[in-house]
Amino acid sequence: MNFCNQCGETVTHIIPENDNRLRFVCCSCKFIHYQNPNIVAGVLPLIVDSDGVEKVLMCRRAIQPRHGFWTLPAGFMENDETLEEAATRESIEEANLKLGKLRLYMVTSLDYISQVYMMFIGQADNDFSPGIESLETRLFTESEIPWDQLAFPVIKDTLQNYFSDRSELVSQNTQSNQSLGKLSVTDMNSFPVHNSSIRR
Amino acid sequence: MNFCNQCGETVTHIIPENDNRLRFVCCSCKFIHYQNPNIVAGVLPLIVDSDGVEKVLMCRRAIQPRHGFWTLPAGFMENDETLEEAATRESIEEANLKLGKLRLYMVTSLDYISQVYMMFIGQADNDFSPGIESLETRLFTESEIPWDQLAFPVIKDTLQNYFSDRSELVSQNTQSNQSLGKLSVTDMNSFPVHNSSIRR
Repeated sequence: MNFCNQCGETVTHIIPENDNRLRFVCCSCKFIHYQNPNIVAGVLPLIVDSDGVEKVLMCRRAIQPRHGFWTLPAGFMENDETLEEAATRESIEEANLKLGKLRLYMVTSLDYISQVYMMFIGQADNDFSPGIESLETRLFTESEIPWDQLAFPVIKDTLQNYFSDRSELVSQNTQSNQSLGKLSVTDMNSFPVHNSSIRR
Repeated sequence: MNFCNQCGETVTHIIPENDNRLRFVCCSCKFIHYQNPNIVAGVLPLIVDSDGVEKVLMCRRAIQPRHGFWTLPAGFMENDETLEEAATRESIEEANLKLGKLRLYMVTSLDYISQVYMMFIGQADNDFSPGIESLETRLFTESEIPWDQLAFPVIKDTLQNYFSDRSELVSQNTQSNQSLGKLSVTDMNSFPVHNSSIRR
C-alpha cells in the first residue's frame, strides 16, 4: 500500500497513537488503513457414485496458485454473505454442484498467510462438472485420493480428519447403512468440529 | 474508497471482467481492491468466584459503538495471529485476564455488517481488571446477567447458548463437581460447537 484510499496522498507505515501494531496511516488526512485476515470458506462434498459408494468430490485447479493440483471447493468469503452461502457459492462456481444442508467441520488458522479456513461437510447428488476455475472434477475413495497432488496442507488435513472420523463413526454404528458405503444424516451430525492451526 | 492505494489515482466502482461483483478498480493502473468480511474473535471466560461458584466474566464498554453496555472480551482478529491468539489477546486488552486452554464454541455470520464472530469458551483464575477499552469488569451468574444492557445480539446468543448447554451438561452428569458450581475439563470438552447466522 502506497497511497491513502480516502484522499490519495502518500501513506506511512507507523504504529498509531493508542495502538501497538504497524498500520498504513495517511500523511495528510491521518486515516488509518486496517488490514485483517481473510476467510476462505469451502466444503468437503460427499456424493454417492453410480457404484453405490459415497465418495469425496475434488476439483483440479485451473488457476494459480497451485495450478493443476487437486483441492476441495473453497474460496474467499465475500462481503454480505454468510459462511454457508460462501461455501455453497464456491461449490457452484468450481464444480457446478448443488449442496444440501451443510455442517461446519474444520476451522483452521493459517497465521503465516493471515487466512482462516472454514470448511463444511455436505452431501449432494451425483451431478457436477468443472466450473471456470477447475480443469477437472472427480469422485475419490480414500485410497484413490491423489495425496501427493493436493493443492494445500489444509486440504490434506481436512481429508485426513474426514476419513479418520468416518472410520470411527462406522465402527461405532453397525446399525447404519454402511454396507452401502453411505453416511446417514445422523452420522453427518455426529462429526466433530475440528479447530486447529497450521504453521509454516 | 476514493483513490487507488497502489498508484494514488481515482477508483471506479464496477464489476471487473470475469467477476460478478462490484469492486473498486483503479481508473489508471486497473488494480482491483477486494474487500472481505472481518473476523471478530472473543471468549466467554468462566471464573470461580470467592463464593466457589463458576461465573461469567463480562466487560462494560468504554468505547463506541455501544459505550456503557456489557459485552464479552472480543475484537477484530489481526494479521499474523491464530484465532486463539486473537481471543487471548482481546481478553488481556479488555480485562487483563490470562486464559487457560480455549475451546471453540460459537461461529456466527453477521452478513449485514460482513463480520464473522468466532467465540471461544475458557477457564481462568479469579484475577482480572478493566483494560483501556473497558469501564468495568465483573462476574455474573445467569440470573445476574444484565440482559437488557448487552452490547450486541451475538453476545446475547452466546450467553443463552452457554447457560442452556451448561444446564444440559449438569443434568447429564450427576457425578461431576456441580455441587461446587464449577465445570470440569471433561464438561468443557462436552460443549457443542454452534454455527449460525444473525440477520438484521
